[in-house]
Amino acid sequence: MLAVLRLGHRPGRDKRTTTHLGLTARALGADRLILTRRDPEVEASLAAIQDRWGAGLAVEVRPQWRPVIRDWKGTKVHLTMYGEHLDEVVPRIPRGRDLLVVVGAEKVPPEVYQLVDHNIAVGHQPHSEVAALAVFLDRFLVGAGLRRPFDGQLRIIGSPRGKRVAASPGRPLPGAERASSNQE
Amino acid sequence: MLAVLRLGHRPGRDKRTTTHLGLTARALGADRLILTRRDPEVEASLAAIQDRWGAGLAVEVRPQWRPVIRDWKGTKVHLTMYGEHLDEVVPRIPRGRDLLVVVGAEKVPPEVYQLVDHNIAVGHQPHSEVAALAVFLDRFLVGAGLRRPFDGQLRIIGSPRGKRVAASPGRPLPGAERASSNQE
Repeated sequence: MLAVLRLGHRPGRDKRTTTHLGLTARALGADRLILTRRDPEVEASLAAIQDRWGAGLAVEVRPQWRPVIRDWKGTKVHLTMYGEHLDEVVPRIPRGRDLLVVVGAEKVPPEVYQLVDHNIAVGHQPHSEVAALAVFLDRFLVGAGLRRPFDGQLRIIGSPRGKRVAASPGRPLPGAERASSNQE
Repeated sequence: MLAVLRLGHRPGRDKRTTTHLGLTARALGADRLILTRRDPEVEASLAAIQDRWGAGLAVEVRPQWRPVIRDWKGTKVHLTMYGEHLDEVVPRIPRGRDLLVVVGAEKVPPEVYQLVDHNIAVGHQPHSEVAALAVFLDRFLVGAGLRRPFDGQLRIIGSPRGKRVAASPGRPLPGAERASSNQE
């Protein structure tokens, strides 16, 4: 299992960032998103995408984040620009074990730095937790996350120009989309 | 030059996403961010970060985006989940030429797909333009973007635990930060 723990989500303000974080987790190879606060808007957005494009990311709410980290059976990493550069750490993360990736919003409680096995910097400059998660997952999974299959109502057929969308076998195409059409 | 053209920014709603996009561009190796609408909040956030952590990203506003793409001397790519998978396209992008990376918000005008050299999918699943830009830049620059030096007031010394921040040579540490201190 590869899970992402999102710390410090503020409903309203972080709605889009946390939604992007969840979608990024799903699209780049994570199985699970753990939120520490319930946010119906985020949960509804993620559910709508998974309904259409295929499940793959379990979403759960665990207000007590300390036991989530402490009791995790597997490797625990925290993405922070203060950590060790990912070029150095990623090769040291064991494969074939469960992995928990902790991603904060603004301020992360100091003890998080102590509870994890590795604090990992996706560069030492401020940028975005969404970007950091994406690069980390792409590096850790060596691109395989982006090739993960999904069993959705819709499936994109990659195209040099325009948009090609197909219905998955046995499923009708909803609404406006047409199989293999070149719409934009 | 490596520039990012952000299409379709809606002031207010997209403020944080576009700020994250700009910071990601800067931290992962881009030189320039081109916005098509002025947004003082985004520009102020990016300026504040660059003041503290070092310049590196020129920000300009060009309301007419068509000539930006059309007149670009160099390669032009557009990140879209409908494009060709980046595993296939990235190796075909010439090195040593200027590169324009077009990144949309919600809806991208159909002609963008025609104006660029490559439509590139960072996976064929919906996620985040911030994540897509990050992974694209990391792949295209083979990690070098994340090693780019910045001449800021502050510099992070990567650390397995806690936070170590140093002033750059000849510059005083502002406010609360102390050189090589272990604060969190």
